[in-house]
Amino acid sequence: MRSSRRGDVDPFIVMDVMEAARKREAAGKSVIHMEVGQPGSPAPAGARAALARAMEAGSLGYTVALGLPELRTGIAALYARWYGVDLDPARVVVTSGSSAAFLLSFTALFDAGARVGLGEPGYPSYRQILRALSLEPVGLPASPENRLQPVPADLAGVDLDGMIVASPGNPSGTMLDRSALAALMDHCAGRDISFISDEIYHGLHYGNRAVSALEIGGDCHVINSFSKYFSMTGWRIGWMVVPESQIRLVERLAQNMFICPPHASQIAALAALDCVDELEANRAIYAENRRLMLEGLPKAGFTKIAPPDGAFYIYADVSDLTGDSLAFAAEILDGAGVAVTPGLDFDPARGARTLRFSYARSTAEIAEGLARLQTFMAERGPVLINGAG
Amino acid sequence: MRSSRRGDVDPFIVMDVMEAARKREAAGKSVIHMEVGQPGSPAPAGARAALARAMEAGSLGYTVALGLPELRTGIAALYARWYGVDLDPARVVVTSGSSAAFLLSFTALFDAGARVGLGEPGYPSYRQILRALSLEPVGLPASPENRLQPVPADLAGVDLDGMIVASPGNPSGTMLDRSALAALMDHCAGRDISFISDEIYHGLHYGNRAVSALEIGGDCHVINSFSKYFSMTGWRIGWMVVPESQIRLVERLAQNMFICPPHASQIAALAALDCVDELEANRAIYAENRRLMLEGLPKAGFTKIAPPDGAFYIYADVSDLTGDSLAFAAEILDGAGVAVTPGLDFDPARGARTLRFSYARSTAEIAEGLARLQTFMAERGPVLINGAG
Repeated sequence: MRSSRRGDVDPFIVMDVMEAARKREAAGKSVIHMEVGQPGSPAPAGARAALARAMEAGSLGYTVALGLPELRTGIAALYARWYGVDLDPARVVVTSGSSAAFLLSFTALFDAGARVGLGEPGYPSYRQILRALSLEPVGLPASPENRLQPVPADLAGVDLDGMIVASPGNPSGTMLDRSALAALMDHCAGRDISFISDEIYHGLHYGNRAVSALEIGGDCHVINSFSKYFSMTGWRIGWMVVPESQIRLVERLAQNMFICPPHASQIAALAALDCVDELEANRAIYAENRRLMLEGLPKAGFTKIAPPDGAFYIYADVSDLTGDSLAFAAEILDGAGVAVTPGLDFDPARGARTLRFSYARSTAEIAEGLARLQTFMAERGPVLINGAG
Repeated sequence: MRSSRRGDVDPFIVMDVMEAARKREAAGKSVIHMEVGQPGSPAPAGARAALARAMEAGSLGYTVALGLPELRTGIAALYARWYGVDLDPARVVVTSGSSAAFLLSFTALFDAGARVGLGEPGYPSYRQILRALSLEPVGLPASPENRLQPVPADLAGVDLDGMIVASPGNPSGTMLDRSALAALMDHCAGRDISFISDEIYHGLHYGNRAVSALEIGGDCHVINSFSKYFSMTGWRIGWMVVPESQIRLVERLAQNMFICPPHASQIAALAALDCVDELEANRAIYAENRRLMLEGLPKAGFTKIAPPDGAFYIYADVSDLTGDSLAFAAEILDGAGVAVTPGLDFDPARGARTLRFSYARSTAEIAEGLARLQTFMAERGPVLINGAG
């Protein structure tokens, strides 16, 4: 049987780290999980209770392709609550997680061969999904001076059909403020570059809230999800906001490509919108975890870090410790019992010298992980290993 | 904002029928639903109970991309139970419904521009998903003599990279028997045409059971779902079986394109595998509905029908009654209060002269629908309307 060329995408390295961690645990050893980008908390209690009731009451068959009308209305109301933006619910498309939103957005906007820019470091699946759709990802190295977020100068002279941006970013946790986001959107609008704003970490901020692209203009795709702030990763439920002119286009694609998002997850998500107290309590935990990380990582020798504005990651420059982040992550898992993600997932060019630490788990786990890292690194010492890697 | 050419797919006509039916109901009028291809029954009670327990016990985060190992094992065991086939669970890929399986299969097998054959009439989304992925659907008109299923002669001289086949078919409900399926697979294997077998209606048969492509050979993709036999449409949970050589390829694509199928739906699906009594009771209802339809539709003047082998559809040739199935369906909805699907969804060439009737709802609804159709058609008479449509 033949295989396509476009299917030959890179593996998700963090998945291999997770598998190595699983093997270690299966062998009876303990692992602190700082590799996974998901909350340790379950879906809000109110969300689970709503689904339990719905399972008794009805058959949870197909919904319409764009999602339950009351969920679309609820999501639109979130834009008023979070940003003061008046959003027509008709522009909200409920999706099977942000994953389905990327597939819908990319197919609605781009034909085979189109070039789509993405900042590096960034979420690795952008690149792989684009390839799987016969599109060309164009990596744009972002500079530490710009806190690893792209700026118009990074796009200068680059031929692009589209641009995808995430603020707060993964792995950096840094945000584009209003003027920086507006500058990027202006640059793209002036060059007919379709702009996609990935806002999946909105709601998780530790200073100023994140700015939505919709606060600046409506001629873009905004993608978001219930996975992170709403703590519903495994439920595969997210959404996108599209310009009014593209609703029917995206609806037809969604009807055919997905039929509808999972009905049960839509019920749970609708209730989750109201679980503000529980979700803000989760955020307070991340804030405390972040404080511990910013204090504890330097003590372990990870000194080249920047305080993240949002999300639940710290991206560390470890160029003084290794030139092979893959080997270093394996060394840390083996020696310290802490799983971390090599930067190569996020930045093919410079990721051999970076690591991503997630602080999405419980505070007790974060504290234990930091203690282990400090003990291990004190023994290992600040030597540069595999400098040429 | 620009829109892609490949995103310009046809609407799903049945969705427009559903919307017209919804409007009629909103206006206080009754509608019998013979348009929708989904069971009236909910997910099995055991499946819902298992999820209710799981929601109390754990956080339902991401699973591994290929799905819960116990679910993959349970699906492999189904191949032993249903077909006597010994299947390695490693070859089972759990997906977000058959929709995600099509996206995975098409991207794993085909590069942009590849030509994929599909019998007409057939499931309309094959064509639209292929277009959205920059692939070229090649419609192969199947003949009534072959009970609307493709045969090797239909493929003769047609340049194809792939072929997708459904048995039982939608809308026809007819099956390819073992020799007919083997003949198609042989034809394709000899010409390097990748073969995809859509087996979503397996389990729903009224005489001999359906034959799986895996009984004939392993060098193909088999796609199936919990939507139909297992009565779990809205849960968006299905699976595919791939050759051993393609497991890693499909895994990498699934990691990036979907992360994982909905965890809650996986839990429910695992339990559904054991709910044999409830599911066989559902099948007995479809069998009775089918009997009523085969008796009642001719009395209403729909005489050109063939007894379906499986699924829950009857595809009627209405060329003696109309040349415009879209207008005729609207006329039936308005005059009889019965929603039916115009054949144009399934066959762009000949579908103006066909209708699909679904008998997936309760027996009482089917009986009422047939009574309404008989009354309406007796008044309307057997005249040919819009013969040139």
